[in-house]
Amino acid sequence: MSVDPLVIFTPSGKRGRFPRGTPILTAARQLGVDLDSVCGGRGICSKCQITPSYGSFSKHNVDVKPDALSEWNKVEERYKEKRGLKEGRRLGCQATVQGDVVIDVPPESQVHKQVVRKRAEARDIVLNPSTRLFYVDVAEPDMHDPSGDLERLRDALRTQWDIDNVAADLHILQTMQPILRKGDWKVTVAVNLGDAENPPRIMHIWPGYYDGTLYGLAVDLGSTTIAAHLCDLQTGAVLASSGVMNPQIRFGEDLMSRVSYSMMNASGADEMTRAVREGMTTLFDQIAAEAGIDAGLIVDAVFVCNPVMHHLFLGIDPFELGQAPFALATSNAMRLRATDLGLNIHPAARVYILPCIAGHVGADAAAVALSEAPDKSEDLVLVVDVGTNAEILLGNKDKVLACSSPTGPAFEGAQISSGQRAAPGAIERVEIDPETKMPRFKVIGCDLWSDAPGFEEEIAGTGVTGICGSGIIEMVAEMRMHGIVDAPGLIGTAEQTGSAAVFADGRTNSYLVYDGTANGGPRITVTNRDIREIQMAKAALYSGARLLMDKFGVDKVDRIVLAGAFGAHISTKHAMVLGMIPDAPLDKVTSAGNAAGTGARIALLNVGARAEIEQTVREIHKVETAIEPRFQEHFVNASAIPNAVEPFPILNSIVTLPDATFNTGGETGDAGGRRRRRRA
Amino acid sequence: MSVDPLVIFTPSGKRGRFPRGTPILTAARQLGVDLDSVCGGRGICSKCQITPSYGSFSKHNVDVKPDALSEWNKVEERYKEKRGLKEGRRLGCQATVQGDVVIDVPPESQVHKQVVRKRAEARDIVLNPSTRLFYVDVAEPDMHDPSGDLERLRDALRTQWDIDNVAADLHILQTMQPILRKGDWKVTVAVNLGDAENPPRIMHIWPGYYDGTLYGLAVDLGSTTIAAHLCDLQTGAVLASSGVMNPQIRFGEDLMSRVSYSMMNASGADEMTRAVREGMTTLFDQIAAEAGIDAGLIVDAVFVCNPVMHHLFLGIDPFELGQAPFALATSNAMRLRATDLGLNIHPAARVYILPCIAGHVGADAAAVALSEAPDKSEDLVLVVDVGTNAEILLGNKDKVLACSSPTGPAFEGAQISSGQRAAPGAIERVEIDPETKMPRFKVIGCDLWSDAPGFEEEIAGTGVTGICGSGIIEMVAEMRMHGIVDAPGLIGTAEQTGSAAVFADGRTNSYLVYDGTANGGPRITVTNRDIREIQMAKAALYSGARLLMDKFGVDKVDRIVLAGAFGAHISTKHAMVLGMIPDAPLDKVTSAGNAAGTGARIALLNVGARAEIEQTVREIHKVETAIEPRFQEHFVNASAIPNAVEPFPILNSIVTLPDATFNTGGETGDAGGRRRRRRA
Repeated sequence: MSVDPLVIFTPSGKRGRFPRGTPILTAARQLGVDLDSVCGGRGICSKCQITPSYGSFSKHNVDVKPDALSEWNKVEERYKEKRGLKEGRRLGCQATVQGDVVIDVPPESQVHKQVVRKRAEARDIVLNPSTRLFYVDVAEPDMHDPSGDLERLRDALRTQWDIDNVAADLHILQTMQPILRKGDWKVTVAVNLGDAENPPRIMHIWPGYYDGTLYGLAVDLGSTTIAAHLCDLQTGAVLASSGVMNPQIRFGEDLMSRVSYSMMNASGADEMTRAVREGMTTLFDQIAAEAGIDAGLIVDAVFVCNPVMHHLFLGIDPFELGQAPFALATSNAMRLRATDLGLNIHPAARVYILPCIAGHVGADAAAVALSEAPDKSEDLVLVVDVGTNAEILLGNKDKVLACSSPTGPAFEGAQISSGQRAAPGAIERVEIDPETKMPRFKVIGCDLWSDAPGFEEEIAGTGVTGICGSGIIEMVAEMRMHGIVDAPGLIGTAEQTGSAAVFADGRTNSYLVYDGTANGGPRITVTNRDIREIQMAKAALYSGARLLMDKFGVDKVDRIVLAGAFGAHISTKHAMVLGMIPDAPLDKVTSAGNAAGTGARIALLNVGARAEIEQTVREIHKVETAIEPRFQEHFVNASAIPNAVEPFPILNSIVTLPDATFNTGGETGDAGGRRRRRRA
Repeated sequence: MSVDPLVIFTPSGKRGRFPRGTPILTAARQLGVDLDSVCGGRGICSKCQITPSYGSFSKHNVDVKPDALSEWNKVEERYKEKRGLKEGRRLGCQATVQGDVVIDVPPESQVHKQVVRKRAEARDIVLNPSTRLFYVDVAEPDMHDPSGDLERLRDALRTQWDIDNVAADLHILQTMQPILRKGDWKVTVAVNLGDAENPPRIMHIWPGYYDGTLYGLAVDLGSTTIAAHLCDLQTGAVLASSGVMNPQIRFGEDLMSRVSYSMMNASGADEMTRAVREGMTTLFDQIAAEAGIDAGLIVDAVFVCNPVMHHLFLGIDPFELGQAPFALATSNAMRLRATDLGLNIHPAARVYILPCIAGHVGADAAAVALSEAPDKSEDLVLVVDVGTNAEILLGNKDKVLACSSPTGPAFEGAQISSGQRAAPGAIERVEIDPETKMPRFKVIGCDLWSDAPGFEEEIAGTGVTGICGSGIIEMVAEMRMHGIVDAPGLIGTAEQTGSAAVFADGRTNSYLVYDGTANGGPRITVTNRDIREIQMAKAALYSGARLLMDKFGVDKVDRIVLAGAFGAHISTKHAMVLGMIPDAPLDKVTSAGNAAGTGARIALLNVGARAEIEQTVREIHKVETAIEPRFQEHFVNASAIPNAVEPFPILNSIVTLPDATFNTGGETGDAGGRRRRRRA
C-alpha cells in the first residue's frame, strides 16, 4: 500500500508513479508528456482532455480499476454541462490519480499535433507554432513593494509557465494596464516563445480567459501573384487560401524588367516596394474577410519569394541582382516585425522570411526544399520548381545541390505568338492525329475535345483565346511526335510533314491550331519562332538539371518532383518528349503543387522547421549556371528535341520519335546562340 | 639573445615579451591593454598613438635603448606630414618592438578614457559608449560561394574585430550595398556593441575610412523643460547643451493636471504624447544645429524623467499613476528604437530609458542615484532632488532608501501670489534689516542690491517682476529670522513685528517687498497664504527625508546633496531656517546641479553604468509616503518653521530665531489639514 500508483500515458508510453490525488495534468507535465493546457489547470480551457482506459493491460502489466481516477468534481460536471465533453473523456487538470491507470492523450489534446498533408509521399507537419496562449494570475500592485504591471505579468509567466525573460513591445505596454484590471488580474497572454535570436515576447493580452485562437499567414510572394494561406496556429488547419495579382506587374511582367525599372527610375525600387506592400494589404484584408476573422489576430507570418521579390519587399534596391556576381544584400533568414514592413496584421506580429540559397535561388526555393525535403530522401530526387525562372534541387540525404536556370516566361504562355496565361478559353491539352496530322485540343473550362459534337456551343462563352503553358508543351511535343517538327526544331512544309495545318509563314512554316476568325476570335497558330522559344526554355531547364547531375556525378535520377502551379498541369510524357526533364520512369515523375507555399506553411506551423531549413540551406551546394562552361554545352545539346546527345532510353521505350530533318541550310536549329539570362 | 624583448605599458603596468617586429598595437591587444584603434592597424585612423619612453627605468628594471622601436616607416611619415603627430608620439600599429621598451598610452588613445566631472566630490565617468567605429575589409561576392553582402560584412567584423552575431536593422540592408561598392569593399561600420538583452548591431556604414565621430544625447525630460546634452561618443565631451519648454505645459502646469487631462479627454494621453515628442524633435534639431552636426549621426539617446512623463513619452496612459496604488506599466529600464518613439535622430538609433524606482520615483531619481551614488558613499548621505515633486534618497554603501514627496510647485514660484519662474527681473536673494525690518533684495540679471545707488537704472530693462523659488525661500526664512513670521507661520501686524512693510490684508497680514506701480510694474508682496504654501512644500520635503531617516534608524545624516536646478541657487542657511532639510553642518550641504541630467550623461557614455543602475534600483528600498502613518505626523510637525518638535541644534548654534507668537485664535498655523498629493 505504500507504493504510489503507476500512471502510464499513451501514445508516448511515458510512465511514472505519483501520489494519490495528483492531477493527471501535473503527472503529464512532470513526465514531459505532450498534454495541452492554456488555463494551467484551472478547469477553464478544456485543452487537457484525456481518455482513461480501464481493465487489464498485459502489455503494460497493469490492471486499471474503475476507481483509478477521482470521481467527477464540480468543475468537470459544470464544464460537461455547459460545453460538452466526449464520451469517456475527463479533464486532465481535474481528474486525479487514485490507482494505477492508463491515460490516452488524444491528438487534439497534444500541443505538438501532427498536421496531415494530403500527398502520400509528404511528411506530416508537426505543429509547433511560434505563438501560444497562456492564462495567468497576475499579482496586484503593492505600494509596499512597488513594481510595474509588466514586471508582475512577467513574474506570473515565469512562475506559472516557466517562461523566462519575456519581452514586450511598446504596443503591449500601451494597452496592458486596463486589460489587467478588466480581467481582475487574470489574463490570457499570447506569447511568441522566441528562438535562438529572440527572447519570448508578449504578443497580445486578453482580460480573463480568451476562448479563441491565434492566426498565422503563410505567404508565397511570386512575381505574378501573391498567394497566402491563413492558418489556425492552435490546430494547424488552413482556414482560407487566397491570392491577388502582384501589383508590381505594372512595372514589368518579368523580374528583369522590374530590376531595369529600378535602374532607370530613381525612386523605382521604392515605388515597387510600396506596390507589393499594398498588394499584401489587399490580400490580407481579403483573406481575413474570407475566413471571417480579425486580421489583428494574425500574430505570425512567413514569407517565401525569389531574390528580387525578397529585396523589393524589404525595400532593398534589387540593382545588384541584375548583374554578375548577383550579390544578395542578405542571404540569411530574416526575423522582422510586421510594422517594419507596413503589414496590416497584429501590430506586434512577427515576420519570418526563409533564407535565400543564392542570388538566383531564393527563399521560395528554400521553401521547396523544406516541403520536398530532398535532404531527407533515401533515393536521388530532382526537384524542379517550374516558373518563369526554374529553381532546381538535386540530392538525397547525403548531399543536395541547387541552381537556378533562366527558363524565361515561355512556359507561362508569354513570348509565344498565340500564348496566354492559364484561364478559361486557353488551350491546355493537345493531340495530333497520327494519320491526318491535324490537331484537336481541349480548352480550360470545357471538358470536350475540340472535335467532339457540341464543342463550339460549350465554348461559346469564352471562345478559344490562345494556348497556355501546359498546352504549348503538349503542342510542341505532339508536333515532334508526329513529324511536324524535327529534332533541331524546324517546322517542315505541308508537303514534308503531310499536314494540311502547316502553312508557309515568311521564311519558315507555321502550324494552324484553330481559326476562330469566323466568330471574331483569334487565329491560333504555332510559329517556328514559338518552337524556338520553347526550345530555349526547356533547354535552360534541362541543362540546369543536367549540370547538377554532373556535379553529383550521376547520369540518371531516381525520381523527379515538379513543383509550381505549372508542374501540376503538365503532361509528364510530353515534357519528356520535349526533353525538358531527364529521362525517368513516368510514374516516378510527380507533381508537388505549390511546394513553395507548402514550405511557407510548414515554417509557419513549426518553428523547429525554421532552424532546420536554415541549416539545410547552409549545407546546400550552390551551383551558379552562369559561370559553368558545361552549362552552355548542355544548353546547346538540349536545344534539340528531346536532346542532341542524351539517349533518353526510358522515353524511347514508350514513344518512337520520327527521324525527319527539315533543315534546308537556312535556320541551324541551334537556339543556343540566342540564349538570354532571364529571371522570374 | 634568444629572449624576446619585454614590452611594458603604462599606466596599466601590463607587460609581456613579444618577438621582434611585433607591432605595439598587437602587443597591446594581446595583453588586453586599452589602446584604441578604428582602422585595425592599417595606419589610417591614428587612434593608437603611443609614447615610447627611453632610458633606464629602475622601477621596471629595464633599460630602453634608442632603437627599442622600429624606425619610422612610410605610413607613419606620411601620416605625420599630412595630419601631424605630437612630439614623441608614434603610431602603435606601425612602430614595432625591436628591444625592451616602455610604452605610455596617453588618455586620448584609450577607448575607456576617464571623462572628468567638474565637482570635486564626483567620480569621473569611464567612457564606454554603446557604439564604436570599426574599419573592415569585406570579402567581395563570389558566384562560386554565394552569400549575402551582410553575411560577408558580418564575417569581416567577426574575423577582424571579434564581434560576433552582429545584427542589422532593415535600414542597413536598404542602404548597405552601394556603400560597400563605393568604398571598394572597405568600410567603416558603427556598431552598437549590445548588452545582456541585445546582440551587437550595425548602426551605420560609411564607404572607406570615416574620419568623424558618433554622437549621443542625454535627455532630461522634465515636466516643465526638456533639456539635453549632445555628447561626442568617442571623447565623452559635451558638444552642446540645450533646452526647450515641454509643450505639454498647455495641458497643465503640473503633472496631476496632465493626468487629469488624460482622464477627462479620450485622446488626451495621445495628444500629450504627440506634444512631448514634438518638443523632442524641436530640441534635437536645435541642439544639432547649435553643435553644427548632422542629427542623423546621433546613434544613441538616454532619457530620464519622472513616471508620468515616462508614460506619456512612451505613449502609455498615465491614468494609473494618478491614484493609489500608483502602478507603473513597467518599472524596468527600457531599450527601444528611436523610430518607436518617432525621434528625428539616426533611424537605427537606440534609446535607453533608466528604470523607475516606484510609481512616484522615476527614472530621473534613478539618474540622480547614478550621478550621486549614495550606494557607494562611506558616510550617510541624503540626496534631495528638489522639483515640483521631491525625490529623496538616503543611504550609504550598506543600504539605500528612496521616496518621493509631493512638494508642489511653490518652490518653483508657482502658487505664490508674486511668484514667478527664475528669469531676469525675479527676486532671487533677500535680506531683512534687523533694525528697520525692511527688505532689500537682488534680482536675476543685476548684481546690485536693491538699496544700492543705481539699482533702479540697472533694472530699468526688466523691472522687478516677482519672486522666484530661491527668493521666496530666503524671503520666508528672513521673515522668520527677523520676527515678522512666527514659528506656526503667521505674519504679525506692523505693530507686533515693528516693520512698516507689514500691512493688514483681509483677515491676515502681508509684507510689502517692492512697489513697482509707479513705473507700471507690480506690487510685490508676501501674503500669509504664500507662507502657507511654502510651509506645505517644505513640510512635504522634510517629512519625506525624516521618514527615510526613521526607516534607516538614524536621527541625523552626515551630509546633504541638493540636486536639481533649484538646489543650485538655494541658500542652505535659509533652507535650514525654514526646516526644509534636516539639521546638518552648512558645509556638509552641497549642490549637485542637474544630477538627473548628469546621470543620463553617465548612462549615455558608459553602458556599464546602465547595468549598474538597474542593479542599484532593484536593491533600493522603496518607501511609499502615502501609506506611512508617520509621514503625516512628520508633516504636521514640519509645518512649523523650522519644526514643532525637532531640535535643529546645529542651526541653533548659527542663528537664534525669535520666539514670537502672533496667534490671536484665528488661524491655527497648522497647514497639515490642507495637504494635497501633487506631482511634478
